[in-house]
Amino acid sequence: MASSSKRSFKKVLVANRGEIAVRVIRACRDLGLSTVAIYSTADRNALHVQMADEAVCVGPPEGHASYRNIPNIISAAEISQAEAIHPGYGFLSENAHFAEICHAAGITFIGPSPETISLMGDKARAKALMREAGVPVVPGSIGTIATESEGLDVASEIGYPLIIKASGGGGGRGMRIVTSPEEFSNAFQTAQTEALQAFGNKEVYIERFFVNPRHVEIQVLGDSDGTIYTLGERDCSIQRRHQKLLEEAPSPFITAALRSAMSQAAIAASKAADYVNAGTVEFLVDPEERFFFIEMNTRIQVEHPVSESIFRYDLVKAQLLVALGEPIASPPAKPEGHAIECRINAEDPWTFVPSPGTITRLLLPGGPGIRVDTAAYQGAVIPPHYDSLVAKVIATGKNRDEAIARMIRALREMTVEGIKTTIPFHLEVLADPTFRSGRYSTSFVEHFMERREALPKNPSKDPEAED
Amino acid sequence: MASSSKRSFKKVLVANRGEIAVRVIRACRDLGLSTVAIYSTADRNALHVQMADEAVCVGPPEGHASYRNIPNIISAAEISQAEAIHPGYGFLSENAHFAEICHAAGITFIGPSPETISLMGDKARAKALMREAGVPVVPGSIGTIATESEGLDVASEIGYPLIIKASGGGGGRGMRIVTSPEEFSNAFQTAQTEALQAFGNKEVYIERFFVNPRHVEIQVLGDSDGTIYTLGERDCSIQRRHQKLLEEAPSPFITAALRSAMSQAAIAASKAADYVNAGTVEFLVDPEERFFFIEMNTRIQVEHPVSESIFRYDLVKAQLLVALGEPIASPPAKPEGHAIECRINAEDPWTFVPSPGTITRLLLPGGPGIRVDTAAYQGAVIPPHYDSLVAKVIATGKNRDEAIARMIRALREMTVEGIKTTIPFHLEVLADPTFRSGRYSTSFVEHFMERREALPKNPSKDPEAED
Repeated sequence: MASSSKRSFKKVLVANRGEIAVRVIRACRDLGLSTVAIYSTADRNALHVQMADEAVCVGPPEGHASYRNIPNIISAAEISQAEAIHPGYGFLSENAHFAEICHAAGITFIGPSPETISLMGDKARAKALMREAGVPVVPGSIGTIATESEGLDVASEIGYPLIIKASGGGGGRGMRIVTSPEEFSNAFQTAQTEALQAFGNKEVYIERFFVNPRHVEIQVLGDSDGTIYTLGERDCSIQRRHQKLLEEAPSPFITAALRSAMSQAAIAASKAADYVNAGTVEFLVDPEERFFFIEMNTRIQVEHPVSESIFRYDLVKAQLLVALGEPIASPPAKPEGHAIECRINAEDPWTFVPSPGTITRLLLPGGPGIRVDTAAYQGAVIPPHYDSLVAKVIATGKNRDEAIARMIRALREMTVEGIKTTIPFHLEVLADPTFRSGRYSTSFVEHFMERREALPKNPSKDPEAED
Repeated sequence: MASSSKRSFKKVLVANRGEIAVRVIRACRDLGLSTVAIYSTADRNALHVQMADEAVCVGPPEGHASYRNIPNIISAAEISQAEAIHPGYGFLSENAHFAEICHAAGITFIGPSPETISLMGDKARAKALMREAGVPVVPGSIGTIATESEGLDVASEIGYPLIIKASGGGGGRGMRIVTSPEEFSNAFQTAQTEALQAFGNKEVYIERFFVNPRHVEIQVLGDSDGTIYTLGERDCSIQRRHQKLLEEAPSPFITAALRSAMSQAAIAASKAADYVNAGTVEFLVDPEERFFFIEMNTRIQVEHPVSESIFRYDLVKAQLLVALGEPIASPPAKPEGHAIECRINAEDPWTFVPSPGTITRLLLPGGPGIRVDTAAYQGAVIPPHYDSLVAKVIATGKNRDEAIARMIRALREMTVEGIKTTIPFHLEVLADPTFRSGRYSTSFVEHFMERREALPKNPSKDPEAED
């Protein structure tokens, strides 16, 4: 049996589904590692199950009973004699307890240590550590706020607007924006109550709230000797309710000096957290080009392919090599070209209501500069139980204009029948003058939808979105 | 109406089918040009027809009656008001007469001038011009050989083995290898007879025959100001009966000095031919690393994507820009990484007997470093009337090993049901030690098949080829 100190492994269990499971299987194949898929009963015919060397059913459709079911997943690894587990993103990927159990079972968890995951999962502790490490953090409370009066004192120091956030939270729950002292008391109590309900922990903290920030993140990669590499930034400001919809690299907005400062801060953040393996340091950038640490994601990101494309560097392969204790190549110092990713979701393009179902016809785009990461195939079923990602289309060009032109071409030729997809939304965004200018913030989608709704109800505003 | 001197165009007729028609449509889309597909009645539901903005039927299935039917194609351009024609490869792409008719009809032919096509199509004239331009040519007769005794004189000068070739020919017809003076007379007469039958012209010429040469070609791109760019070489030595099956760039064999000398020769060749647009100068490289001009292909090659991948340069877009009289970006001086293309044909993988039919299930490979150029889709029909190319899979990596690993992964995950394909052949080639060593010649496939047939008749030699 493998022990937690012995790193060598030949068989990897992929504790995920969909495109990221396919992505991990591909990286394993490239390194000659064999693969074990897990699946819920809803995913019996899923592509990741067909592609892996072996597959084990871990439970019924509901995520908590299958893809988040730690005992069943550990059993699946033991039955199949998998010596390592790649968690992908979502599900158990940032669950420190799961990482610990893997170690205890002698299975290599492909990611940072349980301690690092745990530290970065606690937003208040993470912020405090970053402050110590000299990484700019969003101005706010040191640690959690116990009482309303303490909160009001801190609020007057950092100024309004501010946001109250759950310490154990994420995804918008337990968050309250406060624009004046009069609103504070009510918002504080509501945030605590929501935090308790959502996360079983009523602790909250306070931060300055930025009105039109950009979301820019730095990809880091820590090898087993403690070296931290960075692979530039990704601009993920095109979001709807904290869900990223389109990402690009490099950011069309930041300067070389800002990029360098952010990369240095990401290295300091990673070193402070004893970071090993691939991770992402997320920053807010305000209109004055100041940047502030938000959080660190201790896993591979959905949008990693844009960095891979401009650095020509396989991040998932690097994750496996680091976990194997093998040397990794230094990424190139500078990227080349520009890459954009569109997340094509099985949703109504304008209401974003999920549209699960069977894909009755599928034509994926191809040709120069186009990469598609997907688990979709003609005849595949998109079940209603999980996220609605159908495919990631990544377009790379020598510059942003070429990447945009290729993305428009790719999305126009992509055919998905049987379900609704967000392709029409993406085509309109790609044609939008604000998007084209590169000068957009995280409020882009909201304003874009408002502009769209204000238009006369006539079929088309944009010939590119038509076909 | 457009005239031949006015270059500007907005609508392009693509005078081809299959993956190259799809490829050209994509490049047109990237430049905002609209597209007209042509199709035979066998290709009514073909992907290029679905993708183009318009489509015109040009005749029954047989190539001569549709894709080579000049009057019908010119009519299709006139009906659809297409102002330019991209010929792709094969069919009319190297037909000087067709290029001339386009010019006469005021349609821009996307390629070099009719004079250049005509010159390079006449192998003996082309060779004579290259000799004048100082480009090394295969030692052989100056011009054609009229009589047997003249042939014998020339043969004694250049030495044996030698090859007799039809001046108007190609594709192996009208060719005879002669290893000694005793065989000469018979071979000469047979070659003349075959040449007359196949090409309506009995003229032949004589060249030295190389036993284990490599086939290495230089990609050139001439802009409308007379500048000739080169984009490195492609090694296309993996051939069966002069049909390329796998190509790679850079060549795993040639040195930087040889590459540079060959690129200089390709520039000299292109300048001598007043070359405009994309073209390829093909060379033989002998085991002593001497190189000799074979011929120039005055069109885009099937294997162009390997060069595109390592130079990150869109050659078909450049073809369109040159035809538009617009400036093109200089390609990077140096490529990055390594790319391999496998031509997946609808053929029995070991007998190479065509296997037309309906694709009942199709899963195309994807992920990092994989590009697929195809007109195939689930439900598509591969008709028996044309070449059997189903898809080109292009794998790019930071070095040859990574490109090979990715190609093996891609071909293992590629699923094509309903027809036979050459995927098993390619997987065995990719695992072959001689291929892996990079030290192979144009006789590789023959020797590979002999080695394979000599093995005991047991299911598998190579675990990589299994699944």
